[in-house]
Amino acid sequence: MTIHAPAVPTIEDVHAAAARIKGHAIETPLLESPALNDRVGGRVLFKPEVLQRTGSFKFRGAYNKISSLSPEERARGIVAYSSGNHAQGVAAAAKLFGIDAVIAMPIDAPAIKRRNVDAMGATVITFDRFKDDRDAVVKSYVDAGRVLVKPFDDPMIIAGQGTIGLELVAQAADLGAKLDAVVSPCGGGGLISGIALAVKALLPSTEVWAAEPENFDDTRRSLAEGRRVANASGFRSICDAILTPEPGEITFEINRRALSGAVAVSEKDTAAAMRDAASHLKLVVEPGGVVGLAAVGSGQIDLSGRCVAVVLSGGNVDLSVYARLLSEA
Amino acid sequence: MTIHAPAVPTIEDVHAAAARIKGHAIETPLLESPALNDRVGGRVLFKPEVLQRTGSFKFRGAYNKISSLSPEERARGIVAYSSGNHAQGVAAAAKLFGIDAVIAMPIDAPAIKRRNVDAMGATVITFDRFKDDRDAVVKSYVDAGRVLVKPFDDPMIIAGQGTIGLELVAQAADLGAKLDAVVSPCGGGGLISGIALAVKALLPSTEVWAAEPENFDDTRRSLAEGRRVANASGFRSICDAILTPEPGEITFEINRRALSGAVAVSEKDTAAAMRDAASHLKLVVEPGGVVGLAAVGSGQIDLSGRCVAVVLSGGNVDLSVYARLLSEA
Repeated sequence: MTIHAPAVPTIEDVHAAAARIKGHAIETPLLESPALNDRVGGRVLFKPEVLQRTGSFKFRGAYNKISSLSPEERARGIVAYSSGNHAQGVAAAAKLFGIDAVIAMPIDAPAIKRRNVDAMGATVITFDRFKDDRDAVVKSYVDAGRVLVKPFDDPMIIAGQGTIGLELVAQAADLGAKLDAVVSPCGGGGLISGIALAVKALLPSTEVWAAEPENFDDTRRSLAEGRRVANASGFRSICDAILTPEPGEITFEINRRALSGAVAVSEKDTAAAMRDAASHLKLVVEPGGVVGLAAVGSGQIDLSGRCVAVVLSGGNVDLSVYARLLSEA
Repeated sequence: MTIHAPAVPTIEDVHAAAARIKGHAIETPLLESPALNDRVGGRVLFKPEVLQRTGSFKFRGAYNKISSLSPEERARGIVAYSSGNHAQGVAAAAKLFGIDAVIAMPIDAPAIKRRNVDAMGATVITFDRFKDDRDAVVKSYVDAGRVLVKPFDDPMIIAGQGTIGLELVAQAADLGAKLDAVVSPCGGGGLISGIALAVKALLPSTEVWAAEPENFDDTRRSLAEGRRVANASGFRSICDAILTPEPGEITFEINRRALSGAVAVSEKDTAAAMRDAASHLKLVVEPGGVVGLAAVGSGQIDLSGRCVAVVLSGGNVDLSVYARLLSEA
């Protein structure tokens, strides 16, 4: 019997990613709102990746992955599947490197995400996120020699997203804050596993929590069962960015050791968190990007007297949808 | 005949303000959008003061002014009149210094502004912005010994707002950008005169442009006539933050020498700029805060091949109004 061990990235990989993306990705600031601090009775530091190039954290991992490709691989082009934010990150990084990119996106992806990918010169093909197998959708392109840039289950992608953790730790220290916990949205787990890798290496006692939409809480249930379990089919959610079928193999290998837990948040709490982000932080955050704040706002993670960093992972929401959710007070 | 010369602040006053507000005000980042750059054919660097403490630049000047008061003056308390952003800046600074504050706000000020001032413990009185004389409204409080913290026509207020200019110049240099012009919203002129003071001292050939709402373009007409002229009465505007009756005496003394010009923007262009800020920058910007981007977007300021900094001065807009303006595509 052989034990299958996935290739888990290390803190050195995250440091290497930070060196690669420097000057290309934005070092997003840490923001806070005295009003929100008062409400939760603790200190909440926000990491607004909505201000990142392409409007989400995904550029970090995509740039790190693509920068590691050989000249031969770059010449053959790349292919990716994505709910939309990874698509934009890959398209932006591919454009910077002058690489041809084919990107498969769900047919129901927000128009803003599709439009931005088109504008960056990538070729878009579509699939049904609730029916089609993603790897099958891109198979012919991979067979033709293109490198598949996975959305989360890849050491270079995870290491790239982990640069957020390095920044978080350094920026909180600059503020004189002791980070008790970090809360991040979680889909396939690339973002939170990268952050956990970095944060746990630097601050071992800091908790890392995942936030997921209700009915798409595969990481929460997988942590409880100690093995990867998939989401039930048939559900819908406004959190289009983080509706993955199940945790990644590599990401879960990291998360099952590093996370303190995961919480599921309702659509109502998600919309309320979008309104709080607009009112108190002046940030446009998409549903899937705001679930960390929703988790904090719903009282599921204890904040009293503690300092917690919340990652706002993306802001690519159609204005018509956004306006509707802001109005539902 | 004596020539009346207003007490104009100097670049040294701006440097002193920067030292005072350090660690209290946020050094807001410079942001840019490749998509917006492509559209205008130049490079636009945004200074998002919506991310400043209290959601607008006003905290800078208010903190600088209040920090300069003597212990005796602080003990007597302060009074201010404001359309809402200065009110929040003053209330926040007063709270930090433990000073009693009375603030007169227009009866039609956005609810978010009134709510935030209340939450910071200031006493609010109201007035009619289209009828009442602002100085008369606060006269009894001044007579009782309170220091009046003016919204713009005060050297310490202007110097505080000017710290944005210092940051802009340093941050643009960090990006390797040569600043051809700076565009800023303009009401009474405290923000833009402070910025002009700083920018012109450091980069004499950089242009500084004011953006105003149509029918409230008193600075544009004053520059054309070479003397301060008031706005006609009877008009309304969504840009509540910058509807002042006429330019300040001190601010105009600076602006008439330092500005390259001023442009008036329509409500339609203002709403479009709010949508652009949400889509491309992920920032919630209030109508009066976004007129600089509206001026750039309307083509009234030439950007082709140039690098222009645009100040987004505030983001305190009621969500119901914001949602309506986002939907008017």
